[in-house]
Amino acid sequence: MPWSKFDIEMMARAIKLAKRGQYTTRPNPSVGCVLTVNETVVGEGFHIAAGGPHAEVHALAMAGERAVGATAYVTLEPCSHYGRTPPCAEALINAKVARVVVAVTDPNPQVSGRGIEMLQQAGIKVEINLLQADAANINPGFMTRMRSGLPKVTIKLAASIDGKTALSNGVSKWITGPEARRDVQRMRARHCAVITGIETVLADDPSLTVRHAELGGLGQTLTIEQVRQPLRVVLDSQARLPSSAALFNATSPILLVSCLEYTDAQKALWPAHVSHLLLAPQNGRVPLRDLLQHLGKQCNEVMVEAGATLAGAFMAEQLADELVLYQAPKLLGSQGRNLVKLPDYTEMSQLPSMKLLEQRAVGQDNRFIFNLRF
Amino acid sequence: MPWSKFDIEMMARAIKLAKRGQYTTRPNPSVGCVLTVNETVVGEGFHIAAGGPHAEVHALAMAGERAVGATAYVTLEPCSHYGRTPPCAEALINAKVARVVVAVTDPNPQVSGRGIEMLQQAGIKVEINLLQADAANINPGFMTRMRSGLPKVTIKLAASIDGKTALSNGVSKWITGPEARRDVQRMRARHCAVITGIETVLADDPSLTVRHAELGGLGQTLTIEQVRQPLRVVLDSQARLPSSAALFNATSPILLVSCLEYTDAQKALWPAHVSHLLLAPQNGRVPLRDLLQHLGKQCNEVMVEAGATLAGAFMAEQLADELVLYQAPKLLGSQGRNLVKLPDYTEMSQLPSMKLLEQRAVGQDNRFIFNLRF
Repeated sequence: MPWSKFDIEMMARAIKLAKRGQYTTRPNPSVGCVLTVNETVVGEGFHIAAGGPHAEVHALAMAGERAVGATAYVTLEPCSHYGRTPPCAEALINAKVARVVVAVTDPNPQVSGRGIEMLQQAGIKVEINLLQADAANINPGFMTRMRSGLPKVTIKLAASIDGKTALSNGVSKWITGPEARRDVQRMRARHCAVITGIETVLADDPSLTVRHAELGGLGQTLTIEQVRQPLRVVLDSQARLPSSAALFNATSPILLVSCLEYTDAQKALWPAHVSHLLLAPQNGRVPLRDLLQHLGKQCNEVMVEAGATLAGAFMAEQLADELVLYQAPKLLGSQGRNLVKLPDYTEMSQLPSMKLLEQRAVGQDNRFIFNLRF
Repeated sequence: MPWSKFDIEMMARAIKLAKRGQYTTRPNPSVGCVLTVNETVVGEGFHIAAGGPHAEVHALAMAGERAVGATAYVTLEPCSHYGRTPPCAEALINAKVARVVVAVTDPNPQVSGRGIEMLQQAGIKVEINLLQADAANINPGFMTRMRSGLPKVTIKLAASIDGKTALSNGVSKWITGPEARRDVQRMRARHCAVITGIETVLADDPSLTVRHAELGGLGQTLTIEQVRQPLRVVLDSQARLPSSAALFNATSPILLVSCLEYTDAQKALWPAHVSHLLLAPQNGRVPLRDLLQHLGKQCNEVMVEAGATLAGAFMAEQLADELVLYQAPKLLGSQGRNLVKLPDYTEMSQLPSMKLLEQRAVGQDNRFIFNLRF
């Protein structure tokens, strides 16, 4: 279908609007909507937070009576079910729009196409797949989760140019510069969950929270209240996490995942925001696929901020979608700690497949983003 | 001194000419010369090879009688001594040029300024330091060597993005792509010597020659005859080099450096193009500074193509000027071989100082150039 220049511009505008929800809509997808009459915008909006109005509702409220006969550009197929809000397809029908242009159909196979069907049955002209890839990229985790039940998994690593994450004595502050560390804060703010391992907790005692003051420019866009803290997930197969861990100081949710039960004495010291998941071990460790299946119930995108062993396990088991690597222009030398533990390969053909998606300077460092599903 | 736009353009032209000799003039510096009269070029030339005419002589020959009253732009102070050719300062005087503009004065403290003095005593106006840094950069090794007696040392390394040079079983073909490997060929073609260690020879059996067919675009500029093979230097402290080494197959010069004498039986199997340097050991190894002092007698620029131990020793002893690192977008994992062996640092402040000079894509890989004298 040959799209008009105006159609393309309006969908691009809806996509731009949708992106404004990227840090706040989870576990809902980020969606944008633009309403036009005679090539003039009469309403627009985006979804801000789960439980609040969807993008179409915002746009229709702005347009009022002018929505009659309008074209609606929506980045995702309008919903057809009653959830916390009434279905958007119904709202568009009631407002008497004449045409709906959809970028991406709903990725959930159980509801995909139903919203479009509702609209068509009401006599509305529906066209789909305009700027489809761009619109899907706004919600990669939502797309993945709706299709497979698993969240999108991004591994974050930071190292020197010779692939070392710390000196032999464990000193790692700081290999990367402040800009890269701020970038990691923005990554955390975008993710539903941050997964780490007990070894990292015992060694570095991180808080794994988003610190508003360290968000850089994003801190001007999002208020402290709007910043959503990720679920902090600690893989602790042997139930060793001490109650003194800095993690417990922040009040955002913590999920402890172990293969052994914690003692009542341990649990008694946990604050109220801690929950626990017991999983049967696989090779003595937390089974990663089971963990992701659990997280997939509520998380679109999860990031792994862990040491070489856990990061390597996600890669070797092909459970990770992307790798974000911050690389500092420094040499730590062969005695430093290695970036990622992988099997002892004997041929180059065995290496993990990866494709460079993006490379750019972040302060003094380079940030590489690799697609691991290539 | 405020230079005219024309002066700047002419010196830039002379620098461009000088660069055309970069692969062939060693151990002489690359020099360019432009002669102008009334803002018109009447002659130009560059030094092509040691023993042949200097840049000024080429330019004067082209200008003929038109050199009278001309301005000469030369990238390096004209020589004042009788070597294999008569002094260029004398040639410029005899040709009756009126003005000489020099980019860089001679770096050799024993002759620096003498050429200028000769010209001035003959009544020629001399101006210096136009585009000085650019002109010095044509001959970094020559500059270093004339001042310190040591060549410029560049370490070349290649690794995966996690800093591994091979799998645990030694397999390393190929981590970097064909473009990076061609770039290394061009590096070799530019260097007076390539230094490697006996471990690399025993493990990889390299030839360390320049292969004309692998020079890429440079192969169209340089004929096979013009390609100068670097001196191949093998550090072999315990005199272990086997006569079967692939090194011996190529006929370009080889320098074996050991701390033990080779046996007569070993020497009897060496071809004629092999020479030998015996140095007193330092901590059981070839003393690198002594080696460089020896190479500094004839080499402007040397490159180190060696394993983690030898490359790290040059860095740790602060004997290297630059690091060229080719980095492939691959992960080999913690079991792979490390990039560079350095002391067991305990604080970040102890890391080698290095400053990124240049970063660019070379095929699938990245090439980083670091200044190690920063």
